[in-house]
Formats: sequence, structure tokens, C-alpha cells
Amino acid sequence: MSELKQHIELHHQLEGGMVRSVSMRSSLAGVSGATPTEEMNGAGNLMDFLDEPFPDVGTYEDFHTIDWLREKSRDTDRHRKITSKSKESIWELIKSLLDAWSGWVVMLLIGLLSGTLAGVIDLAVDWMTDLKEGVCLSAFWYSHEQCCWTSNETTFDDRDKCPQWQKWAELMTGHAEGAGAYVLNYFLYILWALLFSFLAVSLVRVFAPYACGSGIPEIKTILSGFIIRGYLGKWTLLIKTVTLVLAVSSGLSLGKEGPLVHVACCCGNLFCSLFSKYSKNEGKRREVLSAAAAAGVSVAFGAPIGGVLFSLEEVSYYFPLKTLWRSFFAALVAAFTLRSINPFGNSRLVLFYVEYHTPWYMAELVPFILLGVFGGLWGTLFIRANIAWCRRRKTTQLGKYPVLEVIAVTGITAVLAYPNPYTRRSTSELISELFNDCGALESSQLCDYINNPNMSRPVDDIPDRPAGPGVYTALWQLALALIFKIVITIFTFGMKIPSGLFIPSMAVGAIAGRIVGIAVEQMAYHHHDWIIFKNWCRPGADCVTPGLYAMVGAAACLGGVTRMTVSLVVIMFELTGGLEYIVPLMAAAVTSKWVADAFGKEGIYESHIQLNGYPYLDVRDEFTHRTLATDVMRPRRNDPPLAVLTQDSTTVEDVETLIKDTDYNGFPVVVSRESERLIGFVQRRDLTLAIKNARQKQDGVVSSSVVYFTEDAPQLPASNPQPLKLRRILNLSPFTVTDHTPMETVVDIFRKLGLRQCLVTRSGRLLGIITKKDVLRHMAQMMNQDPESIMFN
Amino acid sequence: MSELKQHIELHHQLEGGMVRSVSMRSSLAGVSGATPTEEMNGAGNLMDFLDEPFPDVGTYEDFHTIDWLREKSRDTDRHRKITSKSKESIWELIKSLLDAWSGWVVMLLIGLLSGTLAGVIDLAVDWMTDLKEGVCLSAFWYSHEQCCWTSNETTFDDRDKCPQWQKWAELMTGHAEGAGAYVLNYFLYILWALLFSFLAVSLVRVFAPYACGSGIPEIKTILSGFIIRGYLGKWTLLIKTVTLVLAVSSGLSLGKEGPLVHVACCCGNLFCSLFSKYSKNEGKRREVLSAAAAAGVSVAFGAPIGGVLFSLEEVSYYFPLKTLWRSFFAALVAAFTLRSINPFGNSRLVLFYVEYHTPWYMAELVPFILLGVFGGLWGTLFIRANIAWCRRRKTTQLGKYPVLEVIAVTGITAVLAYPNPYTRRSTSELISELFNDCGALESSQLCDYINNPNMSRPVDDIPDRPAGPGVYTALWQLALALIFKIVITIFTFGMKIPSGLFIPSMAVGAIAGRIVGIAVEQMAYHHHDWIIFKNWCRPGADCVTPGLYAMVGAAACLGGVTRMTVSLVVIMFELTGGLEYIVPLMAAAVTSKWVADAFGKEGIYESHIQLNGYPYLDVRDEFTHRTLATDVMRPRRNDPPLAVLTQDSTTVEDVETLIKDTDYNGFPVVVSRESERLIGFVQRRDLTLAIKNARQKQDGVVSSSVVYFTEDAPQLPASNPQPLKLRRILNLSPFTVTDHTPMETVVDIFRKLGLRQCLVTRSGRLLGIITKKDVLRHMAQMMNQDPESIMFN
Repeated sequence: MSELKQHIELHHQLEGGMVRSVSMRSSLAGVSGATPTEEMNGAGNLMDFLDEPFPDVGTYEDFHTIDWLREKSRDTDRHRKITSKSKESIWELIKSLLDAWSGWVVMLLIGLLSGTLAGVIDLAVDWMTDLKEGVCLSAFWYSHEQCCWTSNETTFDDRDKCPQWQKWAELMTGHAEGAGAYVLNYFLYILWALLFSFLAVSLVRVFAPYACGSGIPEIKTILSGFIIRGYLGKWTLLIKTVTLVLAVSSGLSLGKEGPLVHVACCCGNLFCSLFSKYSKNEGKRREVLSAAAAAGVSVAFGAPIGGVLFSLEEVSYYFPLKTLWRSFFAALVAAFTLRSINPFGNSRLVLFYVEYHTPWYMAELVPFILLGVFGGLWGTLFIRANIAWCRRRKTTQLGKYPVLEVIAVTGITAVLAYPNPYTRRSTSELISELFNDCGALESSQLCDYINNPNMSRPVDDIPDRPAGPGVYTALWQLALALIFKIVITIFTFGMKIPSGLFIPSMAVGAIAGRIVGIAVEQMAYHHHDWIIFKNWCRPGADCVTPGLYAMVGAAACLGGVTRMTVSLVVIMFELTGGLEYIVPLMAAAVTSKWVADAFGKEGIYESHIQLNGYPYLDVRDEFTHRTLATDVMRPRRNDPPLAVLTQDSTTVEDVETLIKDTDYNGFPVVVSRESERLIGFVQRRDLTLAIKNARQKQDGVVSSSVVYFTEDAPQLPASNPQPLKLRRILNLSPFTVTDHTPMETVVDIFRKLGLRQCLVTRSGRLLGIITKKDVLRHMAQMMNQDPESIMFN
Repeated sequence: MSELKQHIELHHQLEGGMVRSVSMRSSLAGVSGATPTEEMNGAGNLMDFLDEPFPDVGTYEDFHTIDWLREKSRDTDRHRKITSKSKESIWELIKSLLDAWSGWVVMLLIGLLSGTLAGVIDLAVDWMTDLKEGVCLSAFWYSHEQCCWTSNETTFDDRDKCPQWQKWAELMTGHAEGAGAYVLNYFLYILWALLFSFLAVSLVRVFAPYACGSGIPEIKTILSGFIIRGYLGKWTLLIKTVTLVLAVSSGLSLGKEGPLVHVACCCGNLFCSLFSKYSKNEGKRREVLSAAAAAGVSVAFGAPIGGVLFSLEEVSYYFPLKTLWRSFFAALVAAFTLRSINPFGNSRLVLFYVEYHTPWYMAELVPFILLGVFGGLWGTLFIRANIAWCRRRKTTQLGKYPVLEVIAVTGITAVLAYPNPYTRRSTSELISELFNDCGALESSQLCDYINNPNMSRPVDDIPDRPAGPGVYTALWQLALALIFKIVITIFTFGMKIPSGLFIPSMAVGAIAGRIVGIAVEQMAYHHHDWIIFKNWCRPGADCVTPGLYAMVGAAACLGGVTRMTVSLVVIMFELTGGLEYIVPLMAAAVTSKWVADAFGKEGIYESHIQLNGYPYLDVRDEFTHRTLATDVMRPRRNDPPLAVLTQDSTTVEDVETLIKDTDYNGFPVVVSRESERLIGFVQRRDLTLAIKNARQKQDGVVSSSVVYFTEDAPQLPASNPQPLKLRRILNLSPFTVTDHTPMETVVDIFRKLGLRQCLVTRSGRLLGIITKKDVLRHMAQMMNQDPESIMFN
């Protein structure tokens, strides 16, 4: 926790390779990004001033927090302007209609582009993953499956074998079998993996440091109102798309789902720039980005409803109903675009389509809940170990050699993965196979059951059978794969390449689930006279579906790591397409969340947000301590008094000195230092700009000129220097609370209204100020301490 | 709009028969429901005072608004107390764990009870609907279907006919056919209908006036923080369940979906009373009620995800993530309870299970969008006509004869409905038939197509065929049914019996959709050489599914009336269980919403809220006017000054006079009348209670005693009367804004923080007060006026 504090106070390191030392010393007023349009928040009769007199109007500085209320107010003003203009002419009416529709247009574009990108990524990953093993002679751009699909010599029994597809050893030496061929294939597999990952990390390092990681922690932070310039830029979009393909193809234990959310958000940001409604308003932009996140998950899993709920539950901060509906639209368009590209060749929308033929039974809830416990434990283990490793990377020499790290991890992954057929193939293929029910025609090793010779029905409803040798081999290999995945994923997530967490987590759960499923199945087959099986599992019946266990395990592990709940179940529901299996999934997801929450409330994304010290005010953290605003506000007891301006007795020189001596981002304006009655709040940036402007353009404004924040400046004798009237940059409606306000109310206000700062008064006198960062720091402090000790001291 | 104003200001009539004249004159402070625990919101060192010294602590008066911030604060306090106690002993630890789990227990109970009730209602409705036509001789408590199901003499071809089931005429006269039998059956049908509806309206009138209507407008209002005592009480639950069965069975054009939400909320309220965590906190109670609403929709349609989204999108006001997850749980439990009761006898979860066998084509979007336009127009027509009729009922003599009205409408409905087979049966059966695709074995009139004699395949994939005479008859009957349903629904919704709107709306849409569907199908069959059909509809192919059109039409009409969007599509998606048809549904839902919104922003529920003048601050209304807090606050320019108390110069007598002379619900406390600096806010109720208490128990407190709101009362000479210290009832953190704050910000604050009132200051001086009702009144005013005229005067 002290780490967090340190990070918030000292500097912000982004995951993106570059260590950016941005001064964020938050003293009295950690607020910034001022614009002279502030007066909209106050008096409403200065429309002429809206026409952007300075170039920087309406923008925020990098690594600063936006003011949601102001953004909303600005958008209403813009809307009002357009509505009133629309009555003037047909052209203005059309413009206003276009403006009203621009939201839907942006959603359509986001859906189309992110769907297309997802399709392209899928196709490229397919091809490049297969390239590690061999090449298609008839057309080198075909993946293994496409190659044999187009071949006439493919038989139904052996769909994976065709003469056009040659492994590297076969192509080079002519020998397909033998130790030499194996070694050569092994060697080339590693070489390709290293090449891909080297390319990926180099591209990230050189062109777009922000393209690394999953991106979800940063997107959460951005959506909560933080500015990280370039994080959603065009370069990031391009490089993340390319390096994502490389990283996934290299066979590292990572997925494309998280990065796809980042890619979709980059698309959203790109299209925002087409419409001034979105490009010039950081609040509106975030509405678009929330919808884009939904589109990202939608294409990642082919689950549009799940995507919207994911955005709502996990990613977004401000999610009005309008955004819900638009997100849904974007998610649907994206899903249908992806389907028309049809990268999986099965015209299914979903990533892992499964169909089970048997219901589940009450008694099976026991293994399902056990899988939930496993998922929760895995989530806890993963988060702790991964955070510890990432912290080590940040604080030691290790962090200085990101390329070497990636190369080393890729090398180890490739060396260990190749011998095991379950780790050699791509992780999504593995999950897909583990989810599948064993049909009669399945040729996989996992379906190597001993068939009853009397059975002739070619139906899907195959009774439970004893496991054959292939299944036992598969079990061993799966157990090894499980250990391997658990360990390597901890070291992989957080490296300087795009890396998602969904797929590896699901893989861990699916392997564990399948193992449990086969165990239960065999137990039910061999001991169907046991009491627990007797009621529902007669001999010759199909009682246990090991694929369902794999799916439940995957949900449990994903839930343990991310703490998703509803969206997780809905995504899984969309994968299976039936309400039938919701109860097992929910039992596992709930258990997993409870187990994981018992060890620590934060999911992996929140942990990474904390690790990186982003100023993120979590909606879910309940603040239950009994502190008051007066305990949190600055100045503290022994601090120097609050730096304020007076409404009619400060000179230009005083203001300039104040600006020079302090680094506060804004100053309260009071009637006089004696009465300390609050008039308004003025931003540092506005002050600087206004004085600079006045000194240059307004004659007679000198250092001894008095600055007036009042409505009218008094008539001064001619001998006095020209006064400087600055009421128009004054925010006349600053947010105030009394010093007796409980901090939980203050936290609530900060969250719900998206404030940057709040002034503290007592009986109308200004006492101090609380900024968002003060709130965050206070919450971090409270979490380390016993609430009782604070309550009564 | 003036009607609304009048209603808000004068009195609140609830739909429930009783006209309750509750004085709601909102003058300076339309706030109420004070408790002495208020000081928690202020100073935090008066824990001893928490132990409920007065019986009314923590409750609100009927027809008043709750203070969300205070409720939240109280819950945090309670939680803190339990947490700190839990360390003292094992027993307290167990109690704290039970407390933590009580939310889940309540959800489980709600799910179980509302699922059970829904099942019982379904069974009873089934039986009583059939009772209008005949009776089962083998067991009178069997419905028609169950009766023939258990009979051995039922053939597969004629599943509806069996000797055990006899129509009334057959039973009484022995003749099943003939004019005499028809007339007798007709007469008894009407008689039963009149009996059922008379019973329903009488029960409502006598036992639970709140049980009438759909209940959703009131639940929306309650969830937004209004108190309506008894609306969710045990009597309402019982009577609504019974009368819902009667009302639906009587054959009136109404559905059970809306009332089921009300029933589920009553269950929620019932179980809240088991746990003090929920029964004593109006804020927490509303979290439970939001989840209960989700459970209600879940059982109404068998769509748990749709139910949660309905609660989120349509009903709820404050919906934190925790509630999302719990709602989902309650909705699932309810759905599975209903499924295990299995009232439809098909072990399907959903109300209208459909499975289509053909995809849709791009060209079909044109009729789908046309259906959307129809849905929007129907929505507009229905809302306008129904509101006009309800207003007439409220303001004329008509409203005084609710029983007569119900009897008359039932009579007309029964007389007109019986001759037409599509209106005679229950509306949900009708919808179910309209949604269905015509399979090879379908015996319905709607599926009377002329089969190609060469066709022998018994598959589901039947090509388009020419319509037979049965289809043409059905078309005529459906057209008549459409007109009948449109007209009669307008008069039915709003009568003094439980009446839902979903089913009639869906019926109107489904009829229209099916007609359009058959038309398109026949066009495609007879003119498959037309350009529009050429590309996708070869002869002999199954191109058009009329059932899908019915479903799209139903979605469009439901959307037009309620303005649901995402939840509507998700409910429909759960009914079909496939993403395949989301695009048609969405196209229709969006079109319908846009068309309907063009004629008026409000859905039927918001319109009824307005009609009844409930103080509901809609989250979706965007306030875009350029007014300031100073324009809205009281006192207005010519009003008498604000009634305030001073912190140390008011006597007990002054306070008593103030309480007697005004009816404000609270008073600001200032330092002195000269400085007008705000100290805090005190509730009228607290003041009354405290003074009464002091006069009785505290010696020396007389009329001339000075009331002190300061921390310490000064030492007075013995000759002066004993002072009365009231700081502990003072809320030291009242919410303030400056007079320059734009009203859109104020509206935002009221919505997001759930305030009851807000004080207005300028430079630390108290100027006035804005209550929730002032805000509502201002918004209503603004809507009638041109924004420009307000902007610049």
C-alpha cells in the first residue's frame, strides 16, 4: 500500500516500457486542465466567450484528471447552440440532425473496423501459428486447415493429413518421420517462436510502447476520467494489431481477448476524431470508448450481450442508459462483421461453440463447486505471484532488458511446449478441444474410449464408456500442461508485448476441469452402484459430460482472476446458447469469486492499476470509515495556510508570485482574507493565460494593477494603474462541502459526480480543499489501518 | 403539464381506487421524515444517541421522499458497528456473518416465492380460462390440455378432443353441436367472464386498492425513493395474486407480466421485514426491490438475463454492481423454481419457445422496419388514447363506478371475443401460435397450406407453399382480432383490476406481424421472379418464416409502448435462444423507438407517473435549459424571507411559533440573521420531538429558554431560564450549491445523490433552498416553454 502511495505521489510509470516521470505532486489542489469556458459552469451570459479564444481551450494536460461535470455542461451548451441554430436554416437543421446521428455512425464504424481487425487477426494468427510447424505447398498463405480443406486427397478420417501440407523437416530433408525430423521440427518451431516474439517486442519498443500488456487496467483508468495521451492513438492501434498477431503466434501463454478490447478502444478513439462532438469533449469521448470496449469483447468471444455486460461490469465508469443501447449496437455490428469474415470457417459467431447432449445432475454440483474453489485459489495465486514478479521487474535491473526477457520466456515456453501435444498447439484450439463432448466420430486422443461392440447407433447420445489408453495418456499430458501453464503464465503476463489473460486463465481451468470430468465419468462408470451415482447414473446411460466440467473450470478460473460475475456467466451462456448450464456455471463463478475475495478484494486489473499507481477511484470499494472531511482536507494542522486570492485586493504581481511559488493547479477566490467567504475557484492555467494575454494586449496592465473578480471594478482615479477584470475565468459554482461531512459522503460525491476537487467550508468560511488524489491517498491509508483506531482518535 | 403541476402541488391520487388527499404543499422545504440519527451525517461522536430513543426513528412519513445519502450513511454506520462488535465474541462473529449473507438469503427466498407464485398463477389461469368453455369430467381441476393428456382416448391427430373434456352445453343438454349448444356455450362463456372480473374488482376494492393496475409506474416511483405505505404489503401481495388469476381468466385484454413484477416486489418487501438490515433502511430495501423486479420479469417470460436488464433499464433508479449480481441470482432462482413447477408442461423455461429453421435475408429488413414503424405508431396511439381515457376517468363521474366499468368492459370483451377463435382463447396461447413456424405436423388453421403431393420428407425444412383456404380465413379473423385488441386494450389498461400491458401489446404486434409475414410469403411464392425475391428465394425453397414476422412485430409493439430497448431484444433473444434473429429484432425495436419518440419522449409508465403526479425524477430526461439555481430556489423575489433559525438567539417559543405558522419540513440554521452564514439544517420533525421531550423531561426548559445549536452553550446567570441544547439534532453537513450553479448541474446532483433538498448560498451567505419538488416543477415548466425564451431573459 505504501507503494501505491509512493507511486501516486511521486510519479506514474506506465506499463509501456517508457518510464515517464510526470510530476504529480498533489498538494493543495491537484487539479488542472483549465479552460476559460469554465464560466459556463457559473454565469450563463457570456456566450461570446465560448468561441475558443485560446488554442488550448477544452483540453487537458497529459496525466491529469478530467472534470466530468464540466464536460457534461460543455456538451449541453454545444447541444443548445446547435438546437437554437437549427431553426435558422435548412442547412443548420441538417447539420443538427447529422450531429444527433453521429453517435450511431461512430458506433457503426467502430463495429465494422473492430470486427474486421478481429477477423484479420484471427486469420493471421491461424496462419502464423501453423507456420511454426510447416507450410502449405499449394499456397503458402493457407493455414494447415485451409490447406487440407482445399485438397482433394483429404480423407474424412484423417482430416489433418494431406500431401500439400508439409512439415519443415519433410520439406527440407524429405523425411517426415524419425528422430532427425523431430529434432529439426523442434528446432524450427523454437526459431520461429523466437523470431515472432523478437519482432513483437522490438516493434512495441520502437514504435508504440503503449501497445504492450492487456490494456484493460489503463482503459479502466482512462474511462474513469484520466488522460493518457497516445494510449489510444493511431500508432498504438497499428502496432498493437500487428504485434498481437506476432505475440499470439509465437506460442507464448497469452491470449488476444484483452488486447482486442484495447484495439477496439483505439478504433473508438480514432473515429471520435471525425466528430467534434466527441473529439472536443473528454466526457463524450469516454461514452464512445465504453461502447468500443463492449465491441472488443463481443468480437473476442462472439458474445455481444456478454461484451456489453463486461463493459458495464468490469471496464466502464460512467455508463448512462444511452451508452448501454449504443454499446449493444456496436457489439452486434462487430460480431456480425466478424461472422461475415468467418475466420473459423464454421460460420459460428462464438469462439468455442459447444453443444452438450445430456443434462447435469444435482450431485455434480459438488465437483463444480470444487472447481470453483480451484478457480478462486488459482486466481489468488496468480494475482499475488504476478504482481510480485511485476514489482520485481519494476524495481530491479530486470526491467531494463525487456527484449531479453521476452526472448528468454519465449525460448523456455517453446522448448517446454513442443514435446507436449496439448501445449504445442494454440491455446484456443486446446480449449476448444477440452470443451468438446466426445461424439461418435471424434478422433481425438481425449475421446479414445473403449466402445461397446454392441453399440451401433451413430447418435450423439453415447453412453459412458471406460477410458482407453489414449485417455490415460492424455490425462498425464494434461496434468503436465496444467503445471506448465500455471507457472509460465505468471511470468508472461506483464511483459512488454500485447498479452491477454482470458485465454491462459481459461486454459488452466479447462484442463483442470477436463481432468476432474474424466475422473468423475470413470468413477460413475466403474462404480455406478455407489449411492451418489445410483440415483442418476444407470449403466449404459450418458451421465457425465467431461466437456462441461472443462467449461465450468474455465469459467471458475477466469472468474478468480478477473472477478467478473454476471458478464462471465453471460459470455459462457452465449457460448453454449442454452440456459441449461447456467446453474453449474454460476455455482462455480460464485464460489470462485468468494474464495478469491477471501484472500484479497482486488482482481488482476485493479491490482495492476494499484501497482502502476493510476488515480482510479473504484466504484466497488466501499468506504466504511468514520472520518470527516476535516481530517482529509488540506492544509493540515501544521501546514501553511491555504493559498487563496481575494476578489478585489490582489495585484497582478501578487498573482504572478503565487503562481511562481506554488504548483497548485487552482486557487479559491474569497471576499477578503479576513472574512474568508468563498466566491469561486480559478484554475492556474486560466490565470496564467489571462495575465499573459492582458500584459500583451491590454494597455495599462502592469504589475501593480489590481485583479478584480467582482462583477464591476470600481472607478479608480486615473493615476492608479488600469485594473484587470478576471471574473470571466472564475468558476462561480465550485463544489463545497462542510468540514463535518463524513468522508464516505465525500467519496460518494467524488465518484458519482466525477469531481476533481471540492472545497471545504464551515459556516460559510473557506477552510480547505480536498482533491481526488487526497481522497485516494486517504482511502489507501484507511485500508492499512484498523477502522476502530481511526474512529475514536 | 399544468395538470402535473396541479397534482404535484395539491394532492396525490394513487391509481388504487382510494383518493388519498395528502397535503404535499411544498413550500420552502418539501422534506420530511427526520430522525434524530441525523447527526451521523454530521458529527461522528454521538454513538450513544443511535440507540433509537424515539419509536419513529429512521422511518419516513407516507408519501414522502427518502434521503439516499442519509440511508447510505446509516447503513455504513450499522455495518461498522457490527464489524467492530464481531471481534468481541464468537456469537457476534456469527451474527456478523449472517448479516453479510442475509442479502443472498433474501434473494433466494424472493426467487423461490416469486417462482412458486408465478407457477401457481400459470396453473390457475390455465384451469380457469378453460373453465369458461367446459369442464374435465375425470377431474374437475384439470385444464383442457391436462384432461386430454391423461386420457387414453386422445389421438395424436386431434390432441384437443377427448370424451373426458366436455363443453358446458354438452354437459347440460347432451348436444355438443348445433346452434342451441353454441348459444349456451356463448352465454356461459360471458357469464363466467363476468363472474371472474366481478370477483376481481370487488376483491381489489374491498381488500387492497393498491393491487390494481400493472404496478410498474408505482414501483418505479418507489424505487426512485418515494414512500407509498402498503403498496408492497402482504395484503396487496395476496389480493394481487388472486385477482390477477381472476382478471386474466376473465378473458380481458390484459397480461400477467407487469403485475408479476409487482407481486415479486411484494415478495421482496415481505422478506425485507425478516432482516433489520433491510427493513430499517429504505435505501437497502430498494436494492432488494430492484432485484425482485428482475425476478418478476424473469418468471414472466422465463428470461433471467432479460429480467435483470429490464430492471436495470426500465425500473430501477439506484443500481450498484452488487445489486446486478444479486438480481441475477434472484432471477435465476425464480426461473428455475418456475421450471421445476413446470406449468406449461413442456419443461421449457420460456413463455413462448420457438425454433425457426431458416435464416432471414437482407431484403426482409424492409418489412421488419415497416413493422417497427407500425409498433411506434401503435405505441403513440395507445399511450395518447389510454392517458386521455384515464384522465377522463379521473376527472369525470366515470371514476366513481369502477366495478360497473370493469363489468361493462368485460361484457363487451366477452361478447366480441367469443365468435372469433383468435380472441376467444387466452392471449398468450394466441401469441404462441402466431410465433410458431408451420411444421409438417401442425394442424392449426394458420398452417393450412396446400402441400405439394410430391413432397414426402417429414423434415422441418418445408418449402414455401401456396396458402390454403384456412389461411385466408385465418387472415380475416386475425384482421378483426387486431382491430378488436387495439381498441379494447386502450380501455382495459388502467381499470381497477390487475392488468399488465406486455401481453396485449405483443398480441397486437404478433397479429400484425403474422399478417405481414403471410403476405410476404405468398408474394415470394407467387412472384419469385421479381427482382427483390430473385436473389434469395428460389422456387421450392423455404424463404419466409411468418412466425418470425410475428415475433418482430411483437417486439416492435412492445418497444413502442414501453420504450424498452436492450432488455426487449435480450428477452426476445432468450425466447429464441439464438443470436441469428437479433438483427431483425433490433431493427424493429430501434425503428419503433425512434418513431414513437418522435411523437413524445415518454413511455406508458412515465406517462402514468406524470398522470398521477408522482415525484419521479427521470434519469433519462436530459435537462438542457440555461437556468441557474437562483431562478429556481425559494424564496422567490416577492416572497417573504426564508424561515431560518439562529444558532444561539432563538427561544423555544420562537421555534414553536415557527413550527405552528409554517408547514416547511425543515429549517436552515444560521450564525445570525445579519451574517446569514449557514451552520446546518434541522428537520421539523426532530425539532418537534426534541422540544416536546425537553419540555416533559428536562427541568427548567420553558418558553423563554434559548435554543442553542452551538457546540457549547454559554454559562448564563442563574436567573435566566435553562437553555436547550439541540446540536445533536442538527445536520452539520447540509448540501449546498452557489446561486450561480446551472440548473443542469443541480438536476444532476439531485439525481445522482438522491437528495431531498439543497441549500443555495452566495459567498457563504444563505440565500434560499431548492427541494426535489422545486426541481420537478421547474423541469415541467421548462418543457412547456421555448428554451430560448428562458435563456435570454
